Amino acid sequence: METADYQRILEDVAHEVAGTVGRGRVADYIPALAAVDPESFGIALADVDGGVYGVGQWQQPFSVQSISKTFTLALALARGGESLWKRVGREPSGNPFNSLLQLELENGIPRNPFINAGALVVTDELLSLTGGDASGVLLDFLREESGNDTVDFDRVVAASEADHGHRNAALSHFMAGYGNLVNPVETVLEHYFRQCSVAMSCQDLALAATFLARHGVRRDGGRFLTRSGAKQINAVMLTCGTYDAAGEFAYRVGLPGKSGVGGGILVVIPQRCTLCVWGPGLDERGNSVVGMAAMDSFTTITGWSIF
Amino acid sequence: METADYQRILEDVAHEVAGTVGRGRVADYIPALAAVDPESFGIALADVDGGVYGVGQWQQPFSVQSISKTFTLALALARGGESLWKRVGREPSGNPFNSLLQLELENGIPRNPFINAGALVVTDELLSLTGGDASGVLLDFLREESGNDTVDFDRVVAASEADHGHRNAALSHFMAGYGNLVNPVETVLEHYFRQCSVAMSCQDLALAATFLARHGVRRDGGRFLTRSGAKQINAVMLTCGTYDAAGEFAYRVGLPGKSGVGGGILVVIPQRCTLCVWGPGLDERGNSVVGMAAMDSFTTITGWSIF
Amino acid sequence: METADYQRILEDVAHEVAGTVGRGRVADYIPALAAVDPESFGIALADVDGGVYGVGQWQQPFSVQSISKTFTLALALARGGESLWKRVGREPSGNPFNSLLQLELENGIPRNPFINAGALVVTDELLSLTGGDASGVLLDFLREESGNDTVDFDRVVAASEADHGHRNAALSHFMAGYGNLVNPVETVLEHYFRQCSVAMSCQDLALAATFLARHGVRRDGGRFLTRSGAKQINAVMLTCGTYDAAGEFAYRVGLPGKSGVGGGILVVIPQRCTLCVWGPGLDERGNSVVGMAAMDSFTTITGWSIF
Amino acid sequence: METADYQRILEDVAHEVAGTVGRGRVADYIPALAAVDPESFGIALADVDGGVYGVGQWQQPFSVQSISKTFTLALALARGGESLWKRVGREPSGNPFNSLLQLELENGIPRNPFINAGALVVTDELLSLTGGDASGVLLDFLREESGNDTVDFDRVVAASEADHGHRNAALSHFMAGYGNLVNPVETVLEHYFRQCSVAMSCQDLALAATFLARHGVRRDGGRFLTRSGAKQINAVMLTCGTYDAAGEFAYRVGLPGKSGVGGGILVVIPQRCTLCVWGPGLDERGNSVVGMAAMDSFTTITGWSIF
Repeated sequence: METADYQRILEDVAHEVAGTVGRGRVADYIPALAAVDPESFGIALADVDGGVYGVGQWQQPFSVQSISKTFTLALALARGGESLWKRVGREPSGNPFNSLLQLELENGIPRNPFINAGALVVTDELLSLTGGDASGVLLDFLREESGNDTVDFDRVVAASEADHGHRNAALSHFMAGYGNLVNPVETVLEHYFRQCSVAMSCQDLALAATFLARHGVRRDGGRFLTRSGAKQINAVMLTCGTYDAAGEFAYRVGLPGKSGVGGGILVVIPQRCTLCVWGPGLDERGNSVVGMAAMDSFTTITGWSIF
Repeated sequence: METADYQRILEDVAHEVAGTVGRGRVADYIPALAAVDPESFGIALADVDGGVYGVGQWQQPFSVQSISKTFTLALALARGGESLWKRVGREPSGNPFNSLLQLELENGIPRNPFINAGALVVTDELLSLTGGDASGVLLDFLREESGNDTVDFDRVVAASEADHGHRNAALSHFMAGYGNLVNPVETVLEHYFRQCSVAMSCQDLALAATFLARHGVRRDGGRFLTRSGAKQINAVMLTCGTYDAAGEFAYRVGLPGKSGVGGGILVVIPQRCTLCVWGPGLDERGNSVVGMAAMDSFTTITGWSIF
Repeated sequence: METADYQRILEDVAHEVAGTVGRGRVADYIPALAAVDPESFGIALADVDGGVYGVGQWQQPFSVQSISKTFTLALALARGGESLWKRVGREPSGNPFNSLLQLELENGIPRNPFINAGALVVTDELLSLTGGDASGVLLDFLREESGNDTVDFDRVVAASEADHGHRNAALSHFMAGYGNLVNPVETVLEHYFRQCSVAMSCQDLALAATFLARHGVRRDGGRFLTRSGAKQINAVMLTCGTYDAAGEFAYRVGLPGKSGVGGGILVVIPQRCTLCVWGPGLDERGNSVVGMAAMDSFTTITGWSIF
Repeated sequence: METADYQRILEDVAHEVAGTVGRGRVADYIPALAAVDPESFGIALADVDGGVYGVGQWQQPFSVQSISKTFTLALALARGGESLWKRVGREPSGNPFNSLLQLELENGIPRNPFINAGALVVTDELLSLTGGDASGVLLDFLREESGNDTVDFDRVVAASEADHGHRNAALSHFMAGYGNLVNPVETVLEHYFRQCSVAMSCQDLALAATFLARHGVRRDGGRFLTRSGAKQINAVMLTCGTYDAAGEFAYRVGLPGKSGVGGGILVVIPQRCTLCVWGPGLDERGNSVVGMAAMDSFTTITGWSIF
């Protein structure tokens, strides 16, 4: 497909979903997120050859939130390998309410690395693997892969998350009680909130994730993950990446994806490209309304799906 | 890939997994299944052009059990369309124990069509769509697509299932209480048990499923499902096809698959072929031990995965 | 306390709760119950010496529903003894939704004999103990103890329950799958629905239950249960008798009681008397609104509670 | 009953349960508890007239643990009244595993004040009612009612509980996330652990609880709780006082009781006396083995039960 094609496809997608921009409910559990303009919309595509295309506010940073879980998972696997899977599963979590019940029945082992409990374990593992610099290592990686040195934590968002972080503190203490957090709970939470607070644009995220479309090869050609390691992260994204809407996302979009309550959705089309959409209005399952519509439109126009 | 290649790959796979043949525990909840030779093993591949290859007992019939759910789902969607999804979800079920809790919390709507509760709803829907001939329609389809007129129900197995069917009766009455079964419970159960009892060989199953690799086109070139409809079934197989091991299967195998407690596993490689392995010894999650190993080996040798 | 006192107390209670008569929602899951006049109200007291007092419609029969569980439990214990407790627990069930989850986690053993699952096991046990005449034995006992030969099943109600009995059928099949129902599911259900359909008045019920206030001695002076056996039934009534409002009932009323969705509540004041109130309007937990108010008023006026 | 009788009854009880002394498993989740001699045994009775009787190590202090919940509940109700019940229920919790699931389904409102989550809310309430001195107020009350000025916190136990307190921290943060803890989590936990660490003897506990047998009247004749308030605490003890063995305890013992993992059980016989047994070996539900046997024996000998 030609460069011009990518740009045109994004424009077609943007045109098609224009009616859904602004729909849904902006996350308001912390003030910093609630303040975002609900009409925001951007979409970017980064191909495996380094090309990048975009429409709308595709270069405006937003709060990546849970999309950061994709990168911390990749870093933990790249540095520590498969032993992570002794501490966290890779099965879909079923339904939202059961995270705690599930933790209780399965002795403190979270179902997968994309529910909060699992991401806290990944952060804990990354803290151990990096000698305590889990957030720093993430930031370095994101800056290098996006080619944007201004990517940074949003300290206001991180502090606000901490102030409203009782649920994550509960999960952390609960797992610590089972011996499945080894660093101090406070440290794990601090790094976790910082990771969620990273501000990046659609362009930044699409570029930073291209290693997943290149089967583990970084932007500079160096290998970051094994071929099968990268495929496995894609598999986990497909089965667990969009909360309890993973089945619906696979059905409608048919591509590995990861969403965040900041309104971003990141998708991987293996061997071709990555795609990132942003629109802060969320559906009842916490996924961007316009983001879901855009992904749907994109796969209809291109006919691309992994199935 | 050449014909000769497929045959050689299957031989390599069979060679590699020889050590696991006979491992696991044969399903013994009904006598008819318990009597199967635990050392049985077969593998077959059917490509989209009509070629079929096999190794071991690839032409010996076995009890398809839950693999039949793939075909009843396809038939219900082909005949009734998307309205099925009002009665059954398409999200992974999380963990085994919660099927009943989930049904209770979600008002009798099963999570997906591959857990028993969901398959009972599909059978009920198919009964309504066919004027009461759900099993007959299935049998006709399987015979035509496999090109094998001797494919049939195993009446001993079906009767035995019915004798041990309290759990499925409980699920059916429970959903009927919510108004989510419209045909008489006894009729739904009778057809459901008959569908599970179908005896087919690896060759039969691989051939019968090629419409999923051909994006909805039947063996005779006629369209059975829309292109997106066939992809959607593949998506549901990937996220929900192997009970509570769906995440693990996606991670290790990276292909849509559906397993049965008779020891069969059916896999789709979109646009290329289908693959069916049989070995009756099951792991603790109810999937064939040698079948899982064979799929693993096949994807390693070919490098094929959807990710 | 003098005869005249009992009568006056009941009149005072009736006066005090007059404002709540008609409140609440009449059970309407079967037509026969929905047809009852919501303004109905009656109260009766039977003392351990054979005296009986009443106000309002205290001699009008209504559907006893779950109050029958008290009598089937007593009959199963009187005839079979403590072995019943291997098949059913005596712990409160916690909350309504978990009956099925609980059955699943605890291998088909219901929490207590007053939830439906437990009462089905009691009926199954009684069927075995009586050679298949569980309902007949119950009816004989109720007629003898109430001194009213016209006490009978209501065949319309029983048939209507059976027509709407999918939930109870689900529970029965579920337990049968665990081997915790030994008689055919259809037989157990038939007797269970018949028992629930018994029509009795407040006077009938109060009289029939006096053996619980007399520590196991029947109306004719013969021993029906051991002293400790009778106390134990009172204990189970207190901790489990009013669905998931047992704690609230113990807190507010402080006496062993059993309610039914027909609007009746039966209470035992050990060594003194029994009390039965009827008013068909139910609160959200399935207990008679006026019945709860009347019990509250009665204990306030008399100062009686077991605490 | 005469003084001499009480003493003889306790001796008979001690004689009868001698064979079970030392049975069960001493709590070992913190070192301070694990160090207790498993053969310890004591029993004390305090009557409503001020008499106190005992056998064995009835004057040796042990860790009261959850028995303290009875006193903090009484203090919170005495000072703040019924508004406490807006923040905590009074229904039995069903089964152990569901404390967190229940909290989640019921929006952070614990089922009752005797499960840990509920007791943390009571401590939080008491902190607010006392201007931050929840533990001090408890200690004063226990000293005055037991007449023993040496009753004190065990700082080693309290520190040890805090070191192993991840589960309670998880519960606290979880409820704080729902707005059902108003004081800082750390403060609530500190006071909670201190309250559990109180060391008292059987004699101390029996004396301190006599207000429950005197319907709310303190040792000095002053009113502490209303008559109905005291009865209501007894009711909550009966339905919720022995973890998930409350139904069994009511069935076997038939008296309001509260147990602790330090091996103590405190029982109230309304209008007569209180009874406290101590033996550190626990059954699988966390109740003292010899304590349960002693209570059983006591009620058999005396014939006392509330039913």
